[in-house]
Amino acid sequence: VKDWVIDPVGGVTSPTGFVAAAVASGLKKESALDLALLYAQQECAAAAVFTQNQVVAAPVIIDRQTLQANNAQLRAVVANAGNANACTGQPGLLSARQMQQLTASSLDCRPDQVLVLSTGVIGMQLPMDKIRYAITQAAAQLSPDGGQAAAQAIMTTDTRPKHLALQLDLPGGKVTLGGMAKGAGMIHPDMATMLSVITTDASVSPGLLDRFLKKAADNSFNRISIDGDTSTNDTVLLLANGASRATVADRQSATQFQQGLTYLCTQLAKMIVRDGEGATKFVELRVQGCRTEADAHAIAQTIATSPLVKTAFAGSDANWGRILAAAGRAGVAFDPSQVSLWVGAAHPTELQLVAVGTPTDYREADAAAIFSQAEFSVQLELGEGDAMTTMWTTDLTHEYITINADYRT
Amino acid sequence: VKDWVIDPVGGVTSPTGFVAAAVASGLKKESALDLALLYAQQECAAAAVFTQNQVVAAPVIIDRQTLQANNAQLRAVVANAGNANACTGQPGLLSARQMQQLTASSLDCRPDQVLVLSTGVIGMQLPMDKIRYAITQAAAQLSPDGGQAAAQAIMTTDTRPKHLALQLDLPGGKVTLGGMAKGAGMIHPDMATMLSVITTDASVSPGLLDRFLKKAADNSFNRISIDGDTSTNDTVLLLANGASRATVADRQSATQFQQGLTYLCTQLAKMIVRDGEGATKFVELRVQGCRTEADAHAIAQTIATSPLVKTAFAGSDANWGRILAAAGRAGVAFDPSQVSLWVGAAHPTELQLVAVGTPTDYREADAAAIFSQAEFSVQLELGEGDAMTTMWTTDLTHEYITINADYRT
Repeated sequence: VKDWVIDPVGGVTSPTGFVAAAVASGLKKESALDLALLYAQQECAAAAVFTQNQVVAAPVIIDRQTLQANNAQLRAVVANAGNANACTGQPGLLSARQMQQLTASSLDCRPDQVLVLSTGVIGMQLPMDKIRYAITQAAAQLSPDGGQAAAQAIMTTDTRPKHLALQLDLPGGKVTLGGMAKGAGMIHPDMATMLSVITTDASVSPGLLDRFLKKAADNSFNRISIDGDTSTNDTVLLLANGASRATVADRQSATQFQQGLTYLCTQLAKMIVRDGEGATKFVELRVQGCRTEADAHAIAQTIATSPLVKTAFAGSDANWGRILAAAGRAGVAFDPSQVSLWVGAAHPTELQLVAVGTPTDYREADAAAIFSQAEFSVQLELGEGDAMTTMWTTDLTHEYITINADYRT
Repeated sequence: VKDWVIDPVGGVTSPTGFVAAAVASGLKKESALDLALLYAQQECAAAAVFTQNQVVAAPVIIDRQTLQANNAQLRAVVANAGNANACTGQPGLLSARQMQQLTASSLDCRPDQVLVLSTGVIGMQLPMDKIRYAITQAAAQLSPDGGQAAAQAIMTTDTRPKHLALQLDLPGGKVTLGGMAKGAGMIHPDMATMLSVITTDASVSPGLLDRFLKKAADNSFNRISIDGDTSTNDTVLLLANGASRATVADRQSATQFQQGLTYLCTQLAKMIVRDGEGATKFVELRVQGCRTEADAHAIAQTIATSPLVKTAFAGSDANWGRILAAAGRAGVAFDPSQVSLWVGAAHPTELQLVAVGTPTDYREADAAAIFSQAEFSVQLELGEGDAMTTMWTTDLTHEYITINADYRT
């Protein structure tokens, strides 16, 4: 049973014991907020998932090292937008370390208690004078109401901030989870990066926290695929300060905490998809009847990133041949004569287009009516087994080309 | 030494002993040519490469069966555009077999001496009455001058026919190779399919022919990647009738024949890229310094299909961060601090953007000038080994979205 209370205006400062601030350092134009500082009044257990890209930004390298040395006594996260500090070589690493040190001295903690996030243009060095001043400013403005401003500051081409909080009623007491995120995929590549920070006042061991976050990310952030391009900076951080005194250790509270965390991550991930660059459609894609979940995921990912499928979505064209052809090149063996396909305005998907390998005699107008909605579902049944997966994706529009072709000109 | 004579107006009827015809069956609008018939006056050895897609069209199934039973006595190829005969179930298989039988009886040969190709809309049954009449008509019009009309008839969204012939001076005498092709990738998915037919009057055993074609296709048709979507119908056929009496068996003639065939296939493949839907740029991508050729190919393919890279090409934006980020997600381990990148109007690529992991201080205007050309080269050096690959790709433009989103509306 999912007995949680959702707070749509909540964020990273909703859990007890977290404060935040955001300032305009000058990295973004027009004095927009671009540096966020999150501070935990108690030491936190921490877990993270990072991009799998071979080319990673300096903050990712620094955070991996930091968490390897210390995953139980974290105190702060400093994040900037406007510059990704990626492909910046040795000077970039020094800058990321300096951000860590400046934050630590402003907050009177150790550098290895600070995590660093950056997002924005690739290949340019950070203006450390601006960053230094902004960190000092932000440290002086920390507040329990700073969560929304922090979510605003980490935006790049996002059109709106993404944040949410929810309260869980665990056996040991009420705990709160809060999170913020910024765009993933189909965002400007110079502005590449999916970033998310999640906080909780539950008491959770680092080892358990790590397991919870991996599972939650696998079922949320790793289920959204917009243009298939993963960035050099993608990071999700989870901090637990234990301020609620409710401990997550037994099976029941672990199950509830996992459900709540996965729900929070899923909602943030869906906000990212809905705000995808140029996106006009939100498509839930279910691939079922596979031999393994890995098979289902490979097929879903190929469909969700196919330019032909995504332009059909954009054109409200129920062009199921493209969906089958994309499935067929996913590297998974299956028997096309066993494939079925449904589409619908929502689950359950009500219109069957293909029945066991053969097109049904559906009316084209009915299919087009579904594909012309702002949100619809596609359900593909392989007939090979019981494994399934769900992904969320968008269409591929003129606006995407405009944003990504014309940015630096 | 490559001592061949190129005939740009030549095609599948350039080699001795091949005749062809094309007619308008009514599958395409406005009485455009849409059915091609190729006939060999002698029995041919034959080889083929087919799509690796799990979902294959009826003609692919039929041709695989046919060549398994008979790869030494082929006589004809019948090809239609306007309908792909894909995702058509059992009735579609019957139609493909019927095309084979109708062609055989029109030409007085056996059905297992006929290969079938289809390209066009997916999911619709072929109008067999039209096909039957067209095959009879075409059989009555076969001519040694029919090669260009045949190349015209197999076009779908192609804007121009693609054909070429070349003559080789083998130790055993002169032989001619002729070929035709139609669009691959970035072509309308309902019009999916890369098709190519190559003929030669050399005398080559089926086994050797198979090896030659696989190697040639790997270095040509498998090196072009436009939108990453592979079709249900992709097929390359090679027929050798031995009419020149020059036999390819010894090492020297095998080397020369392979070079000529690979050259022919590469030229046809490049014609396909240059005619890609909405494409305004032709980009040669060289990935070198890899541990294995498979690594090089994986990285090249990821870059060549990245929407972010391809929109940067469209915008004439020398956005190398996108190229490195795409390389980083190709599933190949490498050390980003060893990577170098050059771009140029042609090889040798003259402008270095990244030197051993660090951006050079190139002038943005110089890079933009190269990326604004209709043709340019990108060269990525990984610094991990000696293996390399070359691919040809295009940009991703508004026009691609228009063609692919709005087709059926």
